[in-house]
Amino acid sequence: MHIDILTLFPEMIEGVFNSSILKKAQDKNKFSYNLVNFRDYSVNKHKKVDDYPYGGGAGMVLTPQPIFDAVETITKEKSSKPRVILMCPQGEPYNQKKAEELAKEENLVFICGHYEGYDERIRKHLVTDEISIGDYVLTGGELGAMAVIDSVIRLLPDVLGNQESAPEDSFTTGLLEYPHYTRPADFRGLKVPDILLSGDHAKIYNWRRKESLKRTYERRPELINSHTLSEEDNKLLDTLIKSDE
Amino acid sequence: MHIDILTLFPEMIEGVFNSSILKKAQDKNKFSYNLVNFRDYSVNKHKKVDDYPYGGGAGMVLTPQPIFDAVETITKEKSSKPRVILMCPQGEPYNQKKAEELAKEENLVFICGHYEGYDERIRKHLVTDEISIGDYVLTGGELGAMAVIDSVIRLLPDVLGNQESAPEDSFTTGLLEYPHYTRPADFRGLKVPDILLSGDHAKIYNWRRKESLKRTYERRPELINSHTLSEEDNKLLDTLIKSDE
Repeated sequence: MHIDILTLFPEMIEGVFNSSILKKAQDKNKFSYNLVNFRDYSVNKHKKVDDYPYGGGAGMVLTPQPIFDAVETITKEKSSKPRVILMCPQGEPYNQKKAEELAKEENLVFICGHYEGYDERIRKHLVTDEISIGDYVLTGGELGAMAVIDSVIRLLPDVLGNQESAPEDSFTTGLLEYPHYTRPADFRGLKVPDILLSGDHAKIYNWRRKESLKRTYERRPELINSHTLSEEDNKLLDTLIKSDE
Repeated sequence: MHIDILTLFPEMIEGVFNSSILKKAQDKNKFSYNLVNFRDYSVNKHKKVDDYPYGGGAGMVLTPQPIFDAVETITKEKSSKPRVILMCPQGEPYNQKKAEELAKEENLVFICGHYEGYDERIRKHLVTDEISIGDYVLTGGELGAMAVIDSVIRLLPDVLGNQESAPEDSFTTGLLEYPHYTRPADFRGLKVPDILLSGDHAKIYNWRRKESLKRTYERRPELINSHTLSEEDNKLLDTLIKSDE
């Protein structure tokens, strides 16, 4: 996968992409990236990329020209038109399903604004996807783009090693993860549940499934409704609901 | 505000914190931060911080000792016990209201795991808040912690300048932002709506409010239900709903 990122703050991104899994994924040739400072594409003599909003109001707005020209230059030599993703609070709420969808692409382009609005013509005529990573306001799109990219790259084949893999990830199974425990069995008097030390795999499996359901029911009940539960799970859930009443 | 961040990948964070608004906020003494590699606190002779999960299964689990010791060392000299925030997919979904709440604190401690589970005793006996930035899986808590910190720091008094301020931020008003336009009025034949060039402020205000409502209704109708609309807004909304039927 190749990713182009349009940003006025490329220095925010290097440190993250040269660490940990994203670094390893590049070393394994699973992905490459290119940081594009779209100020370089401005035809304004002062290399301006923003201007005052028509109609008045606080804040500045990114002008269409530098961003259109940057995206068109990047994409003109690609065999197929890549997805062009705008990071913004008005976008589609990002989730694991969207990560799985983006992980199938060969090229992605991200546009990151920075404490400014985007001229609406960018939104309407240049981008294919608008994504929001959550209902909070950030100073720029860079952290959002990095979060999206991190969540996508870790899904590519052979990127995660055995120790890093997590088949029981929250959201992949539709439920929140069950509690984990590791050594020591007694830490300052705080003990690991006996069942996890029992060696009885069937019991451990059931305990984990129950704890996973319980945690989801208590913290994010709306996730359960959209999930297909087994008969066993539904019985467990009934017990949880009854003990609440 | 002072922020301590426990991480095994401090190099992911420096670049982000030394750019843009977060950099300016430090220059204005609005916040300071400290990166704590909790591996330094491990009493294990190989400085190990993780171990296999009790009960079996894929992946590794962060042991309690280094994280308890790091947090206790950091917090023991503070006059009041700071909030200790665990970044994890099982946490409370982060939103603008939580950002406003955290912006009132003097000290915050963030714990970032990295492609591993946390021993449940950390969750139960050390942390005060568990936060998830969204329903997707990241390789670590660092990007989430940086997003939370960015959204909190920009709310501190005098951090944002005039040009960076955004009183009409999405989520702050309860609705998504209206479309922005800036120069040129005609870009490749794509034109700015006449009303924004009219100079009629009352009409511009009404247009923006209507577009804001419309965008929210089309993209995130669930946000509207939780928002108190004016009589005028409700009339507009009725028109939108009717034109849909």
